[in-house]
Amino acid sequence: MDLKAYLAAKRERVDEALKSVFPAPEGPAAEVVKAMTYSLFAGGKRLRPILCIAGAEAVGGGGEPVLPVACALELIHTYSLIHDDLPAMDNDDLRRGKATSHKVFGDAVALLAGDGLLTEAFRLMSAAGGPGAAAHADPRAILRVIRLVAEAAGHEGMVGGQVVDIRSEGRQVEPGILEFIHRHKTGAMIAASVTAGAIMGGGTEEDVEAAARYGRHIGLAFQVADDVLDVEGDSAKLGKGVGGDARKKKVTYPSVFGLARSKEFQKSLVEQALDALRHFDEKAEPLRAIAVYIIERKK
Amino acid sequence: MDLKAYLAAKRERVDEALKSVFPAPEGPAAEVVKAMTYSLFAGGKRLRPILCIAGAEAVGGGGEPVLPVACALELIHTYSLIHDDLPAMDNDDLRRGKATSHKVFGDAVALLAGDGLLTEAFRLMSAAGGPGAAAHADPRAILRVIRLVAEAAGHEGMVGGQVVDIRSEGRQVEPGILEFIHRHKTGAMIAASVTAGAIMGGGTEEDVEAAARYGRHIGLAFQVADDVLDVEGDSAKLGKGVGGDARKKKVTYPSVFGLARSKEFQKSLVEQALDALRHFDEKAEPLRAIAVYIIERKK
Repeated sequence: MDLKAYLAAKRERVDEALKSVFPAPEGPAAEVVKAMTYSLFAGGKRLRPILCIAGAEAVGGGGEPVLPVACALELIHTYSLIHDDLPAMDNDDLRRGKATSHKVFGDAVALLAGDGLLTEAFRLMSAAGGPGAAAHADPRAILRVIRLVAEAAGHEGMVGGQVVDIRSEGRQVEPGILEFIHRHKTGAMIAASVTAGAIMGGGTEEDVEAAARYGRHIGLAFQVADDVLDVEGDSAKLGKGVGGDARKKKVTYPSVFGLARSKEFQKSLVEQALDALRHFDEKAEPLRAIAVYIIERKK
Repeated sequence: MDLKAYLAAKRERVDEALKSVFPAPEGPAAEVVKAMTYSLFAGGKRLRPILCIAGAEAVGGGGEPVLPVACALELIHTYSLIHDDLPAMDNDDLRRGKATSHKVFGDAVALLAGDGLLTEAFRLMSAAGGPGAAAHADPRAILRVIRLVAEAAGHEGMVGGQVVDIRSEGRQVEPGILEFIHRHKTGAMIAASVTAGAIMGGGTEEDVEAAARYGRHIGLAFQVADDVLDVEGDSAKLGKGVGGDARKKKVTYPSVFGLARSKEFQKSLVEQALDALRHFDEKAEPLRAIAVYIIERKK
């Protein structure tokens, strides 16, 4: 399949849906909406929404009901980047080649823009079954997805991973802690994206379990590949300096296991992800291609 | 009715429910859970959860189904306080007489503890209809409540009010902007608390509308009373210095209208709130008593 065309088409669909969430900001609080959309439209790959849509397609869904959930995943991803970049956390001035939120809007508004995006993500999902939404979205499925996404984003998921990541900077850590960080900080939301798609697409319990298994493997593979790219990558393509992890004393797979073993590891994760997809037919082709893309991408 | 006993009993019920949300923290990310519970159990009045329960009782509900929502409201309130206290915002060292989260855990963990509480609030609500939960919670009602709470907490509610509040510090503002800040920063979540209770309690559309109208009036009254207390209050009872608003150059009702007019205004808001309650029978007694308490409290 032509993955490039697939990603471009889905990205456009997601961007359109995201734009419709935020009409032109007005009123006294317009500034925070500007900050929210500034980061939301700063050039992300939309990987999580696309994985969500591809997860729905794999089970024979993928129409309108999945879109609010796909958008919500990107809102949560964007909030996490804004808060990560704050002086209280990584103190980064640049993200994807653009000034970070707090450099443009100040720390207070950046903080609140992150809070606003996280909150809006849940509003969007809750509205997926409401008036004006696709009528066949099952309210119990939406509640299940909200719960799944909240678990993946909260202290038992991404937030938990970020805390351990911050506390591990500049330290020698056990491989088990390294895996904890990567599985929680990045892996949990990627896994939840595919799983949420399979649920919204109307998949069976077996479908949802296979999608979750695929998601867990590519979630970890994605962060290991990110670590590898940070060492080997092309600074212009990444939109940020190469070697940033080492500069920030982040704990990474190459720093603990070396480059060669990290690359072997990410390859074996993708193989396991593809194995989980045997459960599905050709409708899972995009998920298969994305798994390979995740470790072969250059940014 | 004996409001003091009512508040004490409900507070205990809410505290028990909140404790069951967070078992003893363990694992690599235990620190963030400690930070979340540190602030959650730092001595709040539990006004929002109690309003939620009282709202459910007013429509003849108030059993188990309302508790996860009541707890979620307190989690969101606590997150907003942690983020508000951060150096990026108000930079406060004390809250209710105790060191603020970032003074104890550092800025990064405090930020993430707030993010974790906000996220957990939505997980809790989404689980209200799931396995192990009260079986008669209607999934559509839960989705409606999640949407209502997200609207009240996000950029069209509390977050929007906070942005305008921050941007108005040290400035002369129009009375319309002052009302915008108070209605959004504090009023929206208080109104949502009562309304969510009426929905979870199984109220009719008329019930829900009356509860919302009551909530809007007491929501604004609460923040005006807070402004007045900041000028007139007893520092020991408040657990913070009196006159903090003036020191921080916050825009308040007394600073714009003077004390006498501010007190008249809060009284008329409570009268309007009581008027909205005429729709209900004696089961709304607690809501009636709370409306009066809101402007007569000393902390």
